[in-house]
Amino acid sequence: MTYNVQIKVMPLKDLLDPQGKAVLGGLQNLGLGNVADVRVGKHITLQIDAENEAAAKQIADEASKKLLANPVMEFYEIEFVN
Amino acid sequence: MTYNVQIKVMPLKDLLDPQGKAVLGGLQNLGLGNVADVRVGKHITLQIDAENEAAAKQIADEASKKLLANPVMEFYEIEFVN
Repeated sequence: MTYNVQIKVMPLKDLLDPQGKAVLGGLQNLGLGNVADVRVGKHITLQIDAENEAAAKQIADEASKKLLANPVMEFYEIEFVN
Repeated sequence: MTYNVQIKVMPLKDLLDPQGKAVLGGLQNLGLGNVADVRVGKHITLQIDAENEAAAKQIADEASKKLLANPVMEFYEIEFVN
């Protein structure tokens, strides 16, 4: 079966996020001063062929650990969609 | 009130996604051949000060249109989290 998996990779909460700071500055220049904090990460969708959801989750987990996220600077969350 | 808003910005479905193709190749080199398709986009979290959810949604919408997403190549989705 084919599973649609969404992986969110975001900078760790304790770390500075220069890209987010830049976006925040840009928004304030556009007059959107009500925005207080911005963080920017990656959103990745995978189509995984697997026997069941547990197997698909394991593949997504391995992909995140080995390639998609850098655990020193980022955390990831895996979500299934239909 | 402060609202936590998540914005997902992804390449349009009809367009090629070179970054996704590169990730797909990388995953196959790592032996994860069960992954069939990859698309890579941005995930942005905003903290918005607004009177109500509708006002916060409008600010997020304006931010997406003016700065975060390029409508020629990308679509966006706004989601509220608590």
